[in-house]
Amino acid sequence: MPIHSGIIDNPKADRIRKVSDLSSRKRREEYGRFCIEGPQAVREAIAYRPEIIGDLFVEVRAGGQAQGEQAQGEQAQTEQARPLSTVVERLEADSQAYDIYVHHVTSRVMQRISTDSQGIVAVADLAAMRVDAEDVPLAEGATVAAFWQIRDPGNAGTVIRAADAAGCDAVVFVDDCVDVLNPKVVRSSVGSLFHIPVLTMSTREFMQWTKSIHAKVVAADVYGLEGRPAMPLPEYIQQGELDGVQPHAFLFGNEARGLPESILKQVDRSVCIPMYGKAESLNLATSAAILLHTVAMSSHIERI
Amino acid sequence: MPIHSGIIDNPKADRIRKVSDLSSRKRREEYGRFCIEGPQAVREAIAYRPEIIGDLFVEVRAGGQAQGEQAQGEQAQTEQARPLSTVVERLEADSQAYDIYVHHVTSRVMQRISTDSQGIVAVADLAAMRVDAEDVPLAEGATVAAFWQIRDPGNAGTVIRAADAAGCDAVVFVDDCVDVLNPKVVRSSVGSLFHIPVLTMSTREFMQWTKSIHAKVVAADVYGLEGRPAMPLPEYIQQGELDGVQPHAFLFGNEARGLPESILKQVDRSVCIPMYGKAESLNLATSAAILLHTVAMSSHIERI
Repeated sequence: MPIHSGIIDNPKADRIRKVSDLSSRKRREEYGRFCIEGPQAVREAIAYRPEIIGDLFVEVRAGGQAQGEQAQGEQAQTEQARPLSTVVERLEADSQAYDIYVHHVTSRVMQRISTDSQGIVAVADLAAMRVDAEDVPLAEGATVAAFWQIRDPGNAGTVIRAADAAGCDAVVFVDDCVDVLNPKVVRSSVGSLFHIPVLTMSTREFMQWTKSIHAKVVAADVYGLEGRPAMPLPEYIQQGELDGVQPHAFLFGNEARGLPESILKQVDRSVCIPMYGKAESLNLATSAAILLHTVAMSSHIERI
Repeated sequence: MPIHSGIIDNPKADRIRKVSDLSSRKRREEYGRFCIEGPQAVREAIAYRPEIIGDLFVEVRAGGQAQGEQAQGEQAQTEQARPLSTVVERLEADSQAYDIYVHHVTSRVMQRISTDSQGIVAVADLAAMRVDAEDVPLAEGATVAAFWQIRDPGNAGTVIRAADAAGCDAVVFVDDCVDVLNPKVVRSSVGSLFHIPVLTMSTREFMQWTKSIHAKVVAADVYGLEGRPAMPLPEYIQQGELDGVQPHAFLFGNEARGLPESILKQVDRSVCIPMYGKAESLNLATSAAILLHTVAMSSHIERI
């Protein structure tokens, strides 16, 4: 697709304002679009989901020529305008194999679009990222990583990355979570958001769905319930419940409050990560990475 | 020890300026002191290392009375001044069992001391936190977590916490790392800095020390060397090298660059965390947590 020859240099242009507005969840819903900021995330989006990207905004350093006025008013012509880095330049070239429009913008325009772009922002289709549970085929022994009321965008992106690294088949954001397409979630997932389906559902829907696919629901919880304490992770792995046949959904709680009793009562069991030193706990993202990777390593060993 | 009855309300007071200066490494070295910010870190310092704390600065909400002038000029008397939270109030009470001076300060004074205090800051002795390798007794089968050129304070604190949670016997910051007593490192270790000895040494000293204690040095590295690739973590665990007798030091590289070839050539072996999905890698803190906890869980299982 064409790279527009002009350079957009008016940060107040209507088109730019609309992209900038995508930092708001309300506007993302209204416009049906979301932003992918920075070379790493854009690279993964182009590699795995190029069909969802409509536009690419690339910051260019103005060339030696003076910028003349254009018919549209917001575009200035230069011949030597170049992206900020060879990495961005390559992404721009890669995008040309797809139906993606490239817009060159000046530094002040890019500042208006995103303060954290490192020279490149993609605008993608929101609806195309929405996944229904029925659309996620779960193979035998599938693993699902579920997060109840995860609120911090950085954490949310990090756990999506951890679930991807552990080879999980899907991620579920349960109940009132941060928006999956919040730009900080997209960025901190370092592209994993484009590798693995991320579903959102209510607690009730989650419980119904896991039942319908015959998945065991395992809560990651330090304590568990009275009379039914959490089983330490190594024991859980050793007892062989992960047989590679039944699907498993591991459910993690909110950053500050963990999981409420009402949910712990509905799960098949609770598992905790043993603390060997004097630290009382680990944060959510670290706990999720340890648990999911331990489960993944144990099942891959058994399959050898 | 006494709680001074007055409230320091002059942010320009010499004593306050000196505490505020402790955000600079140079000043920490000069004054021989460092800051512990926030209730969590202060709680762990009081619980595990009360002898290193000299002063406690507690923000108080001024009581109903007007603040009269005092002889010292910088202190104002009120009877009803109270810490900001019951958590802080309790820490203040706990500190009274030790040789710790408590100073009540106003909100603007606390702002000058730290923008991230949540109402409490301890000032502690720098020299008392310095640990020599000879002072760290390593039992049979000890585990050391070492980090080469770790630069980000948040990462540094997080990996100290992960090493603590995994029951490591010591942490080593190797070569040119962030200062262990940087306030952000202290804070993000969530008190683990007071649970576990943290040594600093050069690469050469590290190699000599590990040799002298007959420890195997295992590099955490995605690739390893040509002809000697990194062994996947599950295989490494299974082959039984961790026999609970020989000490092991796990060495992690810099956030961006990993470990250089010159160091990889000196280690006993390299181990990598297998990636099961499409994510290319995990960040340093997550990798360290997974590797150290996997090692810890495997050795605790064997001892059951």
